[in-house]
Amino acid sequence: MVFTPSLRLLAVSLVALLDPVSAIWPAPQSFTKGNSSLYLHQNLKITYNGEPVRLSTSSSSFSFPHPPNNVCGPVGPGYEGLFTKTPAQQQLAYTADYPASSLSSKEIVTAGVSRALGSIFSKNFVPWMLQPRGKLSQFEPDVYKGQKWIKSLEIVQTTKDANTTIKPALAGEVSEEYNLTLSAEGDAKLTADSYIGVLHGLETFTQLFFQHSTGTSWYTPYAPVEIKDKPKFPHRGILLDVARTFMPVKNILRTIDGMAASKLNRLHVHVTDSQSWPLQIISMPEVAEKGAYHPTQTYSPADIENIQKYGALRGVQVYFEIDMPGHIGSVSLSHPDIIVAYNEWPYQWYCAEPPCGAFKLNDTKVDDFLGKLWDDLLPRVTPYSAYFHTGGDELNRNDSMLDEGIKSNDTEVLRPLLQKFVDKQHERIRKQGLTPLTWEEIPLEWNVDVGKDVVVQTWLGPDSVKNLTSKGHKVIDSNYNFWYLDCGRGQWLNFDNAAYAAFSPFLDWCNPYKGWRHVYSHDPVANLTEEEAKLVLGGEVAVWAESIDPITLDTIIWPRASVAGEVLWSGRIDPATGQNRTQLDAAPRLSELRERLVARGVQSSSVYMTWCTQDPTGKSCEYPLV
Amino acid sequence: MVFTPSLRLLAVSLVALLDPVSAIWPAPQSFTKGNSSLYLHQNLKITYNGEPVRLSTSSSSFSFPHPPNNVCGPVGPGYEGLFTKTPAQQQLAYTADYPASSLSSKEIVTAGVSRALGSIFSKNFVPWMLQPRGKLSQFEPDVYKGQKWIKSLEIVQTTKDANTTIKPALAGEVSEEYNLTLSAEGDAKLTADSYIGVLHGLETFTQLFFQHSTGTSWYTPYAPVEIKDKPKFPHRGILLDVARTFMPVKNILRTIDGMAASKLNRLHVHVTDSQSWPLQIISMPEVAEKGAYHPTQTYSPADIENIQKYGALRGVQVYFEIDMPGHIGSVSLSHPDIIVAYNEWPYQWYCAEPPCGAFKLNDTKVDDFLGKLWDDLLPRVTPYSAYFHTGGDELNRNDSMLDEGIKSNDTEVLRPLLQKFVDKQHERIRKQGLTPLTWEEIPLEWNVDVGKDVVVQTWLGPDSVKNLTSKGHKVIDSNYNFWYLDCGRGQWLNFDNAAYAAFSPFLDWCNPYKGWRHVYSHDPVANLTEEEAKLVLGGEVAVWAESIDPITLDTIIWPRASVAGEVLWSGRIDPATGQNRTQLDAAPRLSELRERLVARGVQSSSVYMTWCTQDPTGKSCEYPLV
Repeated sequence: MVFTPSLRLLAVSLVALLDPVSAIWPAPQSFTKGNSSLYLHQNLKITYNGEPVRLSTSSSSFSFPHPPNNVCGPVGPGYEGLFTKTPAQQQLAYTADYPASSLSSKEIVTAGVSRALGSIFSKNFVPWMLQPRGKLSQFEPDVYKGQKWIKSLEIVQTTKDANTTIKPALAGEVSEEYNLTLSAEGDAKLTADSYIGVLHGLETFTQLFFQHSTGTSWYTPYAPVEIKDKPKFPHRGILLDVARTFMPVKNILRTIDGMAASKLNRLHVHVTDSQSWPLQIISMPEVAEKGAYHPTQTYSPADIENIQKYGALRGVQVYFEIDMPGHIGSVSLSHPDIIVAYNEWPYQWYCAEPPCGAFKLNDTKVDDFLGKLWDDLLPRVTPYSAYFHTGGDELNRNDSMLDEGIKSNDTEVLRPLLQKFVDKQHERIRKQGLTPLTWEEIPLEWNVDVGKDVVVQTWLGPDSVKNLTSKGHKVIDSNYNFWYLDCGRGQWLNFDNAAYAAFSPFLDWCNPYKGWRHVYSHDPVANLTEEEAKLVLGGEVAVWAESIDPITLDTIIWPRASVAGEVLWSGRIDPATGQNRTQLDAAPRLSELRERLVARGVQSSSVYMTWCTQDPTGKSCEYPLV
Repeated sequence: MVFTPSLRLLAVSLVALLDPVSAIWPAPQSFTKGNSSLYLHQNLKITYNGEPVRLSTSSSSFSFPHPPNNVCGPVGPGYEGLFTKTPAQQQLAYTADYPASSLSSKEIVTAGVSRALGSIFSKNFVPWMLQPRGKLSQFEPDVYKGQKWIKSLEIVQTTKDANTTIKPALAGEVSEEYNLTLSAEGDAKLTADSYIGVLHGLETFTQLFFQHSTGTSWYTPYAPVEIKDKPKFPHRGILLDVARTFMPVKNILRTIDGMAASKLNRLHVHVTDSQSWPLQIISMPEVAEKGAYHPTQTYSPADIENIQKYGALRGVQVYFEIDMPGHIGSVSLSHPDIIVAYNEWPYQWYCAEPPCGAFKLNDTKVDDFLGKLWDDLLPRVTPYSAYFHTGGDELNRNDSMLDEGIKSNDTEVLRPLLQKFVDKQHERIRKQGLTPLTWEEIPLEWNVDVGKDVVVQTWLGPDSVKNLTSKGHKVIDSNYNFWYLDCGRGQWLNFDNAAYAAFSPFLDWCNPYKGWRHVYSHDPVANLTEEEAKLVLGGEVAVWAESIDPITLDTIIWPRASVAGEVLWSGRIDPATGQNRTQLDAAPRLSELRERLVARGVQSSSVYMTWCTQDPTGKSCEYPLV
């Protein structure tokens, strides 16, 4: 063993001086910054396509934010510009005041500007934990001399929106690109093709600013700034299971807050499953009355619209999955005649987890039920969704053994029935103007033909992605070995003492836990040809809910969803180096994003301990190869 | 494969009717209950040793609880009887009003009664999630007819407390036993030897009651009740690391709330480490000034006393660890001359994780520093602690290679120096009336002799426990394979791309995550002789803080600390069966405890999804052996 005195501390300090904080998450495609400080003033002049943005309904001037006195929790509702309510209340107010179709881009952008200024002035943080211990003053500008101010923010949207502004788009249909510049003289300009690009640019703008330790100033140390940015993948999402464990509306809205901050743009709500059916269906109230865990654990039509509209205003398209023909047992509680194998035992013979339950595959009553369901539900979601997900994962052949009309588990018998079932439902979904999504088992395990318009969601890994894209299918990737965020926290099943020896230490099926570094290392297009890669629309992290609930939700999702978000927005490869992005580059920026999420009320887990975050190079906590 | 129709649903329902909810966590040593319902009334007559317990400072009658209107979060501060403030504020008020030595048992018990009634009336829950879907009405009594009321709660403490009521006790010195009876006629009686026994009994009392779905009634469905209870192990604790990540006082107090609810009685605060020194030392302010992450991340002497007193009032003894001679690098920031190898690199040569840093082992300046430290700190903690932990884990021999006074990593050279160091510090700690604790490496790895009064904390497993107890040492067990609660959530170190292949998927050293079922399966006295087992005082779950912080703290600790708590209070073996306690028995009771923790403001993770909790037998989510 050799004992060499190390120059490491000195080296760390030098690097720290060169690049104190790298700022933006996800990394922009192109980003240059300087080292001049500029302050943001409450009288900032903001224009949208040449017209002044008026931030208060009662006054045309932007008034200084005063957080309410009775703030709850670590960070209160804070200043929202147009709104003085919590995000949930704000959304409800918006819903009441403005039907979706009447919202203009100007109104959406105005709300976005208001949120951005609220994030900067009222939901910000003093970054002492991102700077070397006791050295914050070397990062912060001197607030007492020579303050230079940002004078204006000019927002230009280069294409006009459609008549119905909130038009749910398919992947790639709407440009999300934006350019953001901030001159050393204090002129900021944000240009984008669409209002969604403007919203992304505003999020980036907020990430330039910190609260000063003196408390009443907000500054960026990075002027001049020049950012050109656009996403690598058009579909960047979270799958949220609200059927195994119900998630209240406010938790879903807070999830959307975190998504907007991370430039994630798709919230896939897995809204029903065999365990519960929380979705109120107006024409069939019995389904949720019997199928929900409790009357308080349901989503009313107004809840659904509020969630979708809240997302749409933040650039997040919310779409729903009703998983079928498996994973639908809860319908048995109201319509037992159309379900087989509900809660059959031992469950392993009939499904992946209790309770089992699947639609009968050859029964017109199933078709009648679904016709009624689609007619009721689909027109309500189409104003905000371009997609509808019909599930299709983990259908167990044995279910049909118990189906009096089939009594077979022979794939040759079942496949044509499943083909007919899928064709019928997808056609109905298309008729409502929606594009179907399906899990990979439908085309890959069952060899069911689905149209090329259908987006196939994979979870079983890169072979599935390759297989599907080589056949010309559009794919979104949710590789369970990397992007299943609920994994690795232990079994949720009970084991009798007789099973002890075989199952100790009671790991879950997708153990281990996917730490953020592992999440970050996944590239959905690795080992694909260029043609195949073009068909990968993006991916979704999955948040299944056997073992999580509203209390743990935020800590499970964040910051890991943002980590996948950077892979999907910026790409796994850093264009500057041509190499995979490194943990060393990511950790300090992610630590900063995490503080911003927390300041905005999203209860994100930490990236690593303060000892590590206080080294902006990340090197103090790098594993040294010896 | 055989397809047999199953009688399981019927069987489940029958069992559910027989034993709808088992209630108490941890399981009492003896517990019989009936099926008569009794309501609790605000005019309940409560006596302590024959005298009425007066619950309001302004009035002698117990007034109906009105939760404040501007409640924050899912559950507000609620009713606290004597107090109208949050638990933290309440403790501060108590500290200001009552010096510890003047607190009588009556005052402590009165506060305990007040908290118990607050838990029942204001921090309770409607147990629909613990009953079959839609069947809550079969569990709840009919609130509109024939209400029977609990008339009185008679509390009897059979031994008189010492003059100084809060006298910190060694393991086993104070009886924690209690008996609780509730007659079908509504007479409740709680008997205990000590006020700590009374506090435990009051916690059990709260667990008998639910809120009625009609909202304004609170009932127990279990009368008549007879409970005889006492702990198996006298030391039932949590080790909380507040040095790697600072935990604010309020989070520590909330942790104590959860401990009291679970009958855990020792909070071991690992208050310093190489990463930071948050502990203010009056005579050496520079240590925390330089050693803390930030001026806001320190504990003042008042903070320390508040934390200890808050615990003492709830039956939780708070004691501190200053880890040495390793794990002390942060002292280098104020006293560089007494530390070697601070932040040396590559860290693997000098310590277990960055930054390294150890006391010089043969330097009188270290002794001077520690003399000053002990004189300052120890008199401040002795009113509430019987113990002080001097650490001693993971000392790396190579540190002394860099020590100019030693320049050796030879154990034969280092062992006598370490012996002298440990002897000196332990003797100083004994002189202040405290009993030293040490990590197992001191006696086992270094063969340093420690007195038989010293309690040795093990973390490396059953061989260490056997080894130490066979030599006559008292032991507390923190087996890292079972009871390290922060494990299994991924690496916190950054890995360069060059290290990618070797370290993907970036698991931490003590992977996997210890799910509650695994935590529950650990018996600290397994495979010991009777004599050896007697020396095991109990155990502690460990909450190290490289990867957690105030946001994740509760979800990491709870409910798993309560799970270890049942092993330590009730024993791994169920005396009724002579077998290990089962997950099937535990899961429904733990699910209930979890709801109580959440209702009291402790953000516990869930036990499993609602589908599972809604079967009070736990069988719907049992893994069937096929």
